[in-house]
Amino acid sequence: MKHRELNGVHALLLLEGEKLIESIINFCAEKSITGATFNAIGAVKEIELGFYSLSTKEYAWKKAAAELEIDNITGNVAIVDGKPFVHAHGTVSDNETHAFGGHVKEAVIGASCEIFLTPLLGKIERAYDEKTGLKLMRLD
Amino acid sequence: MKHRELNGVHALLLLEGEKLIESIINFCAEKSITGATFNAIGAVKEIELGFYSLSTKEYAWKKAAAELEIDNITGNVAIVDGKPFVHAHGTVSDNETHAFGGHVKEAVIGASCEIFLTPLLGKIERAYDEKTGLKLMRLD
Amino acid sequence: MKHRELNGVHALLLLEGEKLIESIINFCAEKSITGATFNAIGAVKEIELGFYSLSTKEYAWKKAAAELEIDNITGNVAIVDGKPFVHAHGTVSDNETHAFGGHVKEAVIGASCEIFLTPLLGKIERAYDEKTGLKLMRLD
Repeated sequence: MKHRELNGVHALLLLEGEKLIESIINFCAEKSITGATFNAIGAVKEIELGFYSLSTKEYAWKKAAAELEIDNITGNVAIVDGKPFVHAHGTVSDNETHAFGGHVKEAVIGASCEIFLTPLLGKIERAYDEKTGLKLMRLD
Repeated sequence: MKHRELNGVHALLLLEGEKLIESIINFCAEKSITGATFNAIGAVKEIELGFYSLSTKEYAWKKAAAELEIDNITGNVAIVDGKPFVHAHGTVSDNETHAFGGHVKEAVIGASCEIFLTPLLGKIERAYDEKTGLKLMRLD
Repeated sequence: MKHRELNGVHALLLLEGEKLIESIINFCAEKSITGATFNAIGAVKEIELGFYSLSTKEYAWKKAAAELEIDNITGNVAIVDGKPFVHAHGTVSDNETHAFGGHVKEAVIGASCEIFLTPLLGKIERAYDEKTGLKLMRLD
């Protein structure tokens, strides 16, 4: 991963084989970032997308091992059990421009990926919520 | 709706049954926000998407009453007739990861929805434009 | 193109027939912006989307001459050979809400397009990278 900070915004460049979610978690841990938003564009060679059903409280996962454009991945960083946690959703598209989307479990970068991450001063925490079965942001 | 402000950015959490557009309008009215940008990820249980045709100057509306992931909703807040007005577009996806998109008229939240809204100092106004049939931002 | 700056963020409005990528390049050249991120929503009447294959190091291009909603276009501005260069990806959708995406080569605006562009203090440069065949951001 390559990196530069420009007036508080972190530009990150990931190259082939690097993992999107893992890289952001490691970056935030290293920089002691406890809350952030980010977006990413680029390409993957593998991605696992999830669809969450509130009725079954389970994710349906779908894995693609193919070169796909990242049209947009939007996410945020919060703290769970003292560690950075990434929540990201996005769309990817194939060589026919057909778009697919969902909750991004992990993505292995293809050609490259450009991320712009903006830290939020202060800490956002998540905790398990019985009703939804999800780790929700703990706001006021 | 739950809320926290982190150095000028508003993190908003919507839960099942809350309306995305209505919630953002009410939040901005309460906080006297007269210009803002935002993005959202999460899930809906109902959404109405529009496609605007410049030739007919009419929206074609499509309503889905189903659990769908919000891959990304991007929007802004401006003032129309003295009140906050939201313009938002986005993509959602189903349990097969197929993506659908358009102008977001309204969305009823499913499992949850996380919004990060950044106020812009100053006011953006919209006014009806004869040529397009749309309420356009009044810039210089 | 219409424009207003609100505490460091540039709101841009493009109207029918204006070109998205060209307009952002010209705007950044005029304002001496050497690094920026942006997002856009609106509608196009023409768009050319690309899919890059790392194995062939070539783009497959697909051109659509049709009214389509811009669900989201996310991009950044860097400097290549002393001039502003735009890298943008996005999704568009048709009158049935079907979503398509990829690398945005150029888009001719339909009804209108709203762009929010945030300059990054400092300069981001891109240079040709042999391994990927792409102009990558030169970070540290």
